[in-house]
Amino acid sequence: MSPEEFRRVGKQVVDWIADYYAGIEQHPVRSRAEPGEIRAGLPAHPPERGESFDDVLADLDEVLLPGVTHWQHPNFFAYFPANASGPAVLGDLLSGGLGVQGMMWATSPACTELETVVVDWLAELLGLPEHFRTDSTGGGVIQDSASSATLVACLAALQRSGQDVARRGITRRHALYVSAHTHSSVERAARIAGVGADNVRVVDSDPDTLGMDPRHLEELIAADLADGAVPTMVCATVGTTSTTAIDPVRAIGEVAARHGVWLHVDAAYAGVAAVCPELRWINDGVAEFADSYCTNPHKWLLTNFDCSLLWLANRAPMVDALSILPEYLRNEATESGEVIDYRDWQIPLGRRFRSLKLWSVLRCYGAEGLREHIRGTIALAREFAGWVREDPGFELLEPHPFALVCFRPRYSELPAAEADERTRRLLDELNDSGELYLTHTKLDGRVLLRLAIGSPQTERHHVRAAWDRIRRAA
Amino acid sequence: MSPEEFRRVGKQVVDWIADYYAGIEQHPVRSRAEPGEIRAGLPAHPPERGESFDDVLADLDEVLLPGVTHWQHPNFFAYFPANASGPAVLGDLLSGGLGVQGMMWATSPACTELETVVVDWLAELLGLPEHFRTDSTGGGVIQDSASSATLVACLAALQRSGQDVARRGITRRHALYVSAHTHSSVERAARIAGVGADNVRVVDSDPDTLGMDPRHLEELIAADLADGAVPTMVCATVGTTSTTAIDPVRAIGEVAARHGVWLHVDAAYAGVAAVCPELRWINDGVAEFADSYCTNPHKWLLTNFDCSLLWLANRAPMVDALSILPEYLRNEATESGEVIDYRDWQIPLGRRFRSLKLWSVLRCYGAEGLREHIRGTIALAREFAGWVREDPGFELLEPHPFALVCFRPRYSELPAAEADERTRRLLDELNDSGELYLTHTKLDGRVLLRLAIGSPQTERHHVRAAWDRIRRAA
Repeated sequence: MSPEEFRRVGKQVVDWIADYYAGIEQHPVRSRAEPGEIRAGLPAHPPERGESFDDVLADLDEVLLPGVTHWQHPNFFAYFPANASGPAVLGDLLSGGLGVQGMMWATSPACTELETVVVDWLAELLGLPEHFRTDSTGGGVIQDSASSATLVACLAALQRSGQDVARRGITRRHALYVSAHTHSSVERAARIAGVGADNVRVVDSDPDTLGMDPRHLEELIAADLADGAVPTMVCATVGTTSTTAIDPVRAIGEVAARHGVWLHVDAAYAGVAAVCPELRWINDGVAEFADSYCTNPHKWLLTNFDCSLLWLANRAPMVDALSILPEYLRNEATESGEVIDYRDWQIPLGRRFRSLKLWSVLRCYGAEGLREHIRGTIALAREFAGWVREDPGFELLEPHPFALVCFRPRYSELPAAEADERTRRLLDELNDSGELYLTHTKLDGRVLLRLAIGSPQTERHHVRAAWDRIRRAA
Repeated sequence: MSPEEFRRVGKQVVDWIADYYAGIEQHPVRSRAEPGEIRAGLPAHPPERGESFDDVLADLDEVLLPGVTHWQHPNFFAYFPANASGPAVLGDLLSGGLGVQGMMWATSPACTELETVVVDWLAELLGLPEHFRTDSTGGGVIQDSASSATLVACLAALQRSGQDVARRGITRRHALYVSAHTHSSVERAARIAGVGADNVRVVDSDPDTLGMDPRHLEELIAADLADGAVPTMVCATVGTTSTTAIDPVRAIGEVAARHGVWLHVDAAYAGVAAVCPELRWINDGVAEFADSYCTNPHKWLLTNFDCSLLWLANRAPMVDALSILPEYLRNEATESGEVIDYRDWQIPLGRRFRSLKLWSVLRCYGAEGLREHIRGTIALAREFAGWVREDPGFELLEPHPFALVCFRPRYSELPAAEADERTRRLLDELNDSGELYLTHTKLDGRVLLRLAIGSPQTERHHVRAAWDRIRRAA
C-alpha cells in the first residue's frame, strides 16, 4: 500500500470509526451471535489473490459486527468498562504507523523516554510516592494487563525472597496471600511462576467491609513459617473486581513488612480515581508499604486497552529476575547503565510504543478533564444507587465508593435459591434485550447484579433508562 | 472527542502517517539521541488543562521524532525487521476504534471467532499439520511475542510432565534443552516458570550447520533422568536470531518423543517463509513431532507488532495450566464447552482484537502477495550475499536460507581480536552515518555483521547502496 493509497483508505477507516460512534446506539449492546455463527460467515480458506480494503470493511459491517459486543456503547455496564477515547485511538494509530520496537532504549530512545515521562506524570497525578518515580529506586512501566503486572510483581517478590529463584528455580514452598475477593490473576501468577495454586492462602475477609483481615494474615504467615514455607507476597486490593471492596492496605502492609513479605497493591480498576484529590485516601498505606502497585488506565481512564501501569518501590529484584542480555542485543547504551531497557520489566521481549496513547490522553484531557471523567461517572453511579436504595423492591450493596453499583431485586417472597434463579433470569432477559449489558457476581453465595459506569459516551439519560428497564423487568 | 472531531483529527493523523512514509528517507535510520535527551525536551509535569491534538502532533514532530529509530525505513537492516504495512495499521486502527475486550468468547464473539479463522488460514498457508487446526485436538492463538509463546509452551510442557505444576507448583527439578543459538526467551521462560536458568541445558551444536546435535540431546536427557530431574521441554529453532541457522527438527523430535519431552519449535522469524511451497521443507518433522510451534507475522509477514502465532498439537495441557474461572467471568457459552476462551491460551487475561490486523493483511495481500514479499526479500538478500562472496575483502557466512546475511570484512592483516574491534568500529561508523542500520552477532567468539532485509519499503537500490556504503567504509 503506497502512502497515497494509505491516505485514501486510512480516511475511509477514520470515517468508518466516526460513523460507528455516531451510530453506536443502533446496535444491541451485547452480541446475539450463537457459537460458530460468525465463523460460518467467513470463508474456510484464505484468499489466493489480494482483495481491496473495501472488501474488508464490507465484511466487517456484514459478517463481523453482528458478533461484536459493543464495549464502547453508552449502555455497556458490564464487567468493568474498558474505555476508549479519541485521543487514545489516535495515539495508538501513531504507534502503529511508526511501527517501532521498544524492547530496549537503543531500539528507539523516544519510545522508552516518553514512557518514563508519562508513567512519572501519572504517578504525580495520582499522588503516588516519590520512590515510585523513575529517578528514584523504583519506577513505572506500561504492561498489557494487570494480570501481567501481578506476575511481574510475583517474580520480583520471589527473587527478593533470597532463594535466587531466577537461577535455581523454585526449590522451596513459597506462599502467596489473597482474600476471597482478590482477582484470580494472583492464583494465575502462582500457577505460572511455579508456586502452584495450592500455595495461595485465602485470608479471611471482614464480613462487613469485605476487606482482608490483617490478623488472619498474620496467623497464616506464622503457620507457613512454622511449616517451613517461605511467605513471599500478599496482594491487597483497592477496588475488587467483584464489588470494588477495599482491603486495609496500611494494616496489611504492617504485617507484610514485619515478615519481609512483598506487598503488591492491585488497584487495577480503582487506582486511577486518585486523580481526584478527594479520593486520594485510597492511597493510604501505599507510600509506606507497597512494594508494587498497579492501576489500569485502560479501564477507567479513557485509554484503550492495553495500558496497565505497574510501579515498583525498588526495581532491582524485578530486573534481577528478568534480565538476560544475549550478544545480538548488546549495545553501548545498555552497557553504560544510563538507560532503561523496559524488556527487563515485563514478560515479553518486544513492546509497542504504548506510551503514545497514554500521552495523548493525558495531554488532550489534562488533569482537569480526567478528574471530570472520574467525578462524572461516580456521580452517575451514586444517582443510580440512590434510585435502587429508594426502591423497596431492591437491595443495594453499600458502600459503593467508585462507579460500580451492586444490587439485586429483593424477591422477598422467594427462598434464596429461587430468588437467585430469578435474578439470573432477569439478567439474561435484560442482556438479551440488547438495550443494556450488565454482568453479575456472587457474595455470600447470593447473586448480585453489577452495573459499572465508565464510558465517556454514557450520559444521565442512559443510566436513567437502564434503571427504568431493570425495574420494569424485575 | 465527538465523532465529528474524531473524523477531523483522525484524518490529520492519517495524513501525518502518509507523509511520514512518503518522507521516511529524510530521517537518519537510527536515532542519534543521547540518553535523557528526549526526556529533557518534554515537560516534567502533566498539563492541568487539556490541549489540542495539534499540540500532540507538533511535539511528535519536534521532540519525539529525533528520538525515533525508524524501523520502517527502507535502510533498516538491523535485528529482524518488524514489518508494518498499510492493511495491518488500518486493521489495528479498527481494533482500537471498536475497543473490544476479547478475553472470552462471550465478551465479543467475533473477536474470538475471527482469530480462530485467521490462525487456521495461516496454518493452511504455511502447510502446517491438520492437528494444529482449531477443529482438531490443537489450535492456534495470537500472542504478543514469541517470548510469551515460549512461556505458554513451557507451562503446557510442565503441566504434561505429570507433576500437576499448576496446582502443586514446581516440586522437582525440571530440565529444558536449548543450543547455544536458541533464543534467550527459553532461559527467560525457565526463570519465569520457576524452572530456573540453571536447569536449562545447552546441547552441543554441529560446528558447520550450527544445528542442535540430537545425540548430545539424548545424552543430556539420560544424564538428567539418572540424576532424578524431569526432562520437560526441548526447543528446536528454525531460523535462529543470530544467524538463521536451522536445528534438525525431525531428529530432535525423535529423541524428544522417545522420552516424552515436549518439543517446541521456535520459528519466530523464519516460519512464515513456508507460505512459499519451495520453502516448505523448513516444516520437516513438525507434523510428526512438534507439540507447539511459533512464528511471528510481525517480523517478516507485514503485520504490525504484536502478532506472534502459537499453535499446539494438543491444547489440553495448556488450558489445564492456565484456566481459572472466577464467578464474575462465568457465562453460559463458556460452560457449554462449545466455545474457545483465548484467555486460557495466554499469560494476560484481557486481549485486543488483534486478529483484525492479520485478517486485513491476509486479505489485502492474498497468498500471492505474501509469497511475493518473502521471495522478493530473499532474492535481495541473495544478491547482497553474492556481492559479499565475490569481494575478496569480505567473508560470508553460508548458508543464508532466508533474508538475513551475516558477513564481515576479512581484515586478514590483523589478529582476530583487532579485526573484531575494527568490525565493531565499522558498524558504529555505518550506524552513526544515519544512512543505514545494521546490528551484529558473534560466532565462535568472532564478530559478524548482520544485514536483514524485510521491509516492503526496501528496494534493490537500497540494498545496493548499503553494500557500496559498507565496502567504502571497510
